[in-house]
Amino acid sequence: MGGPLSQGRFSIRLKGRLIMDDLGCLFCFKKYPLNVFAPFCPECGEPLIIVSRKKKREFRLNKTLAVEVFEDYLPLAKVDPKLSLGEGRTPLVELSRLMRKFGLPPTFAKNECANPTASFKDRGSVVAVQKAVSLGFSTIGTISTGNMAGSTAAYAAKAGLKSVIFVKEDTSKEKILAAGVYGPVLVKVRGDYGALFRKSFEIGRTYGIYFMNSVDPFRIEGYKATSFEIFLQMEKRAPDHMFVPVSAGGHIIGLIKAFYDLKEDGRIKNIPAFVAVQAKGCAPITRAFDRATATCSRFPNPRTIAHAISNPNPPGGNLALKMLRDTGGSMLAVSDAEILRAQRLLADHEGLFCDPASATVLAAQLRLKKVKRIGPRDRSVLVITGSGLKTIEDLKADAIKYYDAAVEDLESAIAKIL
Amino acid sequence: MGGPLSQGRFSIRLKGRLIMDDLGCLFCFKKYPLNVFAPFCPECGEPLIIVSRKKKREFRLNKTLAVEVFEDYLPLAKVDPKLSLGEGRTPLVELSRLMRKFGLPPTFAKNECANPTASFKDRGSVVAVQKAVSLGFSTIGTISTGNMAGSTAAYAAKAGLKSVIFVKEDTSKEKILAAGVYGPVLVKVRGDYGALFRKSFEIGRTYGIYFMNSVDPFRIEGYKATSFEIFLQMEKRAPDHMFVPVSAGGHIIGLIKAFYDLKEDGRIKNIPAFVAVQAKGCAPITRAFDRATATCSRFPNPRTIAHAISNPNPPGGNLALKMLRDTGGSMLAVSDAEILRAQRLLADHEGLFCDPASATVLAAQLRLKKVKRIGPRDRSVLVITGSGLKTIEDLKADAIKYYDAAVEDLESAIAKIL
Repeated sequence: MGGPLSQGRFSIRLKGRLIMDDLGCLFCFKKYPLNVFAPFCPECGEPLIIVSRKKKREFRLNKTLAVEVFEDYLPLAKVDPKLSLGEGRTPLVELSRLMRKFGLPPTFAKNECANPTASFKDRGSVVAVQKAVSLGFSTIGTISTGNMAGSTAAYAAKAGLKSVIFVKEDTSKEKILAAGVYGPVLVKVRGDYGALFRKSFEIGRTYGIYFMNSVDPFRIEGYKATSFEIFLQMEKRAPDHMFVPVSAGGHIIGLIKAFYDLKEDGRIKNIPAFVAVQAKGCAPITRAFDRATATCSRFPNPRTIAHAISNPNPPGGNLALKMLRDTGGSMLAVSDAEILRAQRLLADHEGLFCDPASATVLAAQLRLKKVKRIGPRDRSVLVITGSGLKTIEDLKADAIKYYDAAVEDLESAIAKIL
Repeated sequence: MGGPLSQGRFSIRLKGRLIMDDLGCLFCFKKYPLNVFAPFCPECGEPLIIVSRKKKREFRLNKTLAVEVFEDYLPLAKVDPKLSLGEGRTPLVELSRLMRKFGLPPTFAKNECANPTASFKDRGSVVAVQKAVSLGFSTIGTISTGNMAGSTAAYAAKAGLKSVIFVKEDTSKEKILAAGVYGPVLVKVRGDYGALFRKSFEIGRTYGIYFMNSVDPFRIEGYKATSFEIFLQMEKRAPDHMFVPVSAGGHIIGLIKAFYDLKEDGRIKNIPAFVAVQAKGCAPITRAFDRATATCSRFPNPRTIAHAISNPNPPGGNLALKMLRDTGGSMLAVSDAEILRAQRLLADHEGLFCDPASATVLAAQLRLKKVKRIGPRDRSVLVITGSGLKTIEDLKADAIKYYDAAVEDLESAIAKIL
């Protein structure tokens, strides 16, 4: 803890030649060349992240695509717009009704469901796919519990690449169809998800498949765009708090890294206080945070309705933990009951129907509000990561009432209901 | 046919005082004051549309929300951003792989699935809800086969209004949940959908509920934003062809009306040739177009996989027909087999997973390409109206293959598959 990288100078402290795609380990302070088949530190095994950077960085605000607007901040020699599905430029919506109801300070939702495959994953997929094409790959892959499968398969389709998608054996039929429609090679895999994660890289090496999994360094770079957009949407100021659901860790690593970029460029003074949220039923990173240990350990018997963040052995857990601590962030775990309540509140007060994983952030904010951890003028952004349309089966159907009537009797039926 | 309104001077030929919310009938050439409980011509029964306009109209390109950017073109005294869910600003994506595969001229998809409730309906809902609030309504309503239900309920929730949603009796459980989550009064109605349409306005009058149905004049105004965005995204030029799925008619009426606005303001010379597409199994407007009759009649025994456009008795059918003829447009009906093929092509070649109703537009373009109805340099826009995530159950599950394997045997399994 507290090494040179924790001082807010993220990439430039790693000495030596800064070339494109230099990867660095934030634990061992060493640089490595790119190896997409094993983007992990050979010494400590932690995920490597991009530490090279372009000399001159500006937002290209006259551009249409988010990947083009933020091209200077991405490790891509040149963005090919033909590989984009139009991801990004998602709404930042003030949650005015919930603010009033709960006496919350200014709170906004960054709605990542508005992405092409209805989740934040598209932000990462578009950058990783650009890289795959420039490296000459003809096949890409991923492992997934749902959202990543659809996103990776969709971007592969757009790029004319083959894709190989491994999903957990308990993946619902709906999610398999929603990914399968893009034409990937889809395999339902029995066994441990952590073992599958490692196995995928072995298969990648053997068959020349670029597995762009959750903590892929280019995927992480893609996630930065969300933070940049929030900064621009808040009139070039950072919010005070960022609430983010956390699973493997890749997303929050990217979101924090973007604010390091902004700080390095003198655009902001302080990195927002991130609140990383997990479900109580699967909270390996939160547990490590609370115990003040440097590393996460496997969370036993994961069980939560927030399937999209149910990863008992998160590959980016230690790195997320470090970055959170370095930047004054915190962690919180919320119960399934809190999650379901928050999901309904977002829908019936704000017209925003997200998946249970995303609803954790509102649950967390309501909890922190009670213990007065947020100042009355602090501006909070809740990052909504995925659409409720993909998890319809998790809605408590009996909590949603509807009536039956014949068209002839409708007027009298309505009289009784209203 | 061929009256003064067909000469391209859409609103200004209706003489007399032009006040906000003046409604006009394009068949009888008369104006009427706003009556949200019966927005139909008292003489001929056709939908009334907005004919008043603001004196000075400009795009406010420095604004964030689409409703604010296009405020000058909307019949709203003032846009309240708090009633928006961040709709619009959807991607226009070049379908480069399909262009190559089929030798198509320049073809783009306007992806309206990227709206907050994953369909084009949000464009209309946001404008109609603004109106409802400014008129002092506390309850809004709609009738729906699916997309409209979720959209109207979501915007009501955001505005703090009650909503009353009538859905067809055969609406799937998933669609009921996807709308019910926003907390509307939801009624599954047995009986004729046309009768329900009329009944809803009666109920609206009795209970003071603003039923913002498919051809609501403010909803139609909201749809204009999609055409304006396409114009801006094509560097201030109109496309040559616009392919649009058509059901009740409201959407295409709005899309065409926007190009009249642009022409009136001298921004374009020609209105694009619209190709309105229906499913063969329910094609009342196409049938009237082909028979060269002025009015549509009920389509017997509607039966198509494109449920979202399966309206046998479209309330805006005659008006859509007139506007298409006035502007050199055409109609086409495609088969369910063509629709399903087009849906898969959009997904596995372009990474775009839309519902069957939306896929009709690609099917239509492929058909027109064969008969050489599109010039080699003509630019076509396919308007993709709704997400495939809402119609997962309509995917042919057996057409989507997947494999099973244990993580230990994965490498050998992959060897066999690849």
